[in-house]
Amino acid sequence: MAENTCFYCENGEKLKSLMIEVCKLRTSTVYLFKNQSFKGRCVVAHNDHIKELFELNEEELKNYMLDVSDTAKAINDLFKADKINYAINGDKVPHLHYHIVPKHEGGYTWGMPFGIDKKVYLEDSEYQEIIELLREKLA
Amino acid sequence: MAENTCFYCENGEKLKSLMIEVCKLRTSTVYLFKNQSFKGRCVVAHNDHIKELFELNEEELKNYMLDVSDTAKAINDLFKADKINYAINGDKVPHLHYHIVPKHEGGYTWGMPFGIDKKVYLEDSEYQEIIELLREKLA
Repeated sequence: MAENTCFYCENGEKLKSLMIEVCKLRTSTVYLFKNQSFKGRCVVAHNDHIKELFELNEEELKNYMLDVSDTAKAINDLFKADKINYAINGDKVPHLHYHIVPKHEGGYTWGMPFGIDKKVYLEDSEYQEIIELLREKLA
Repeated sequence: MAENTCFYCENGEKLKSLMIEVCKLRTSTVYLFKNQSFKGRCVVAHNDHIKELFELNEEELKNYMLDVSDTAKAINDLFKADKINYAINGDKVPHLHYHIVPKHEGGYTWGMPFGIDKKVYLEDSEYQEIIELLREKLA
């Protein structure tokens, strides 16, 4: 996929329909996923159009994973997760990005890979409230 | 979950029913997943009973992710994947481990999170053949 057909690189309407920018970290951008079926769910997208983890050199890998780890900790602390799930899929969106998904014991898809069928959309003010909390934690 | 009830820490029959050890890397153990619905699928399990990525310090995180990255590259090169999927779930098995899953365009669950329903078990000699290829790449 060329960079000009990648919605992360485009940073246009398609991206904005799915997620809201929270902040920039060392080497990536944190987005709040609009479908909040898991409250606090975020995406951590690398700032470059990279497909696989192993395309990063040692320093780049460390910096990206520190961003992922810090984001997971912020979500975990804010939303009292029982377990964080971390996933890179991107078969059809091959721009390196992690889904960071807080799971709760007995909750939706506990004990299984996190589901994609349930949709929970919030009011703009509710998204902003979560974004402010995340920004504070990640500052 | 206490270490003595964790099947990675136990390293007994339960673990052996699910996966076969390939090799040790810097800080983790690579296992071939017995369900080969995605040919080459492996697990990279941390050698310590750690729950979340953010429990690792910077150096530990880098070393673990280099293990994950090297394993993904080996699988990618051997099985000509169109995309690697990387997942930490472990809601009920909270011992840090990645599933490294090679996906192929048009194949099983392409464009979606990798599925868990399809089961493909191989002959022992076929597992050994894959393990030898992985060991050679990861040596």
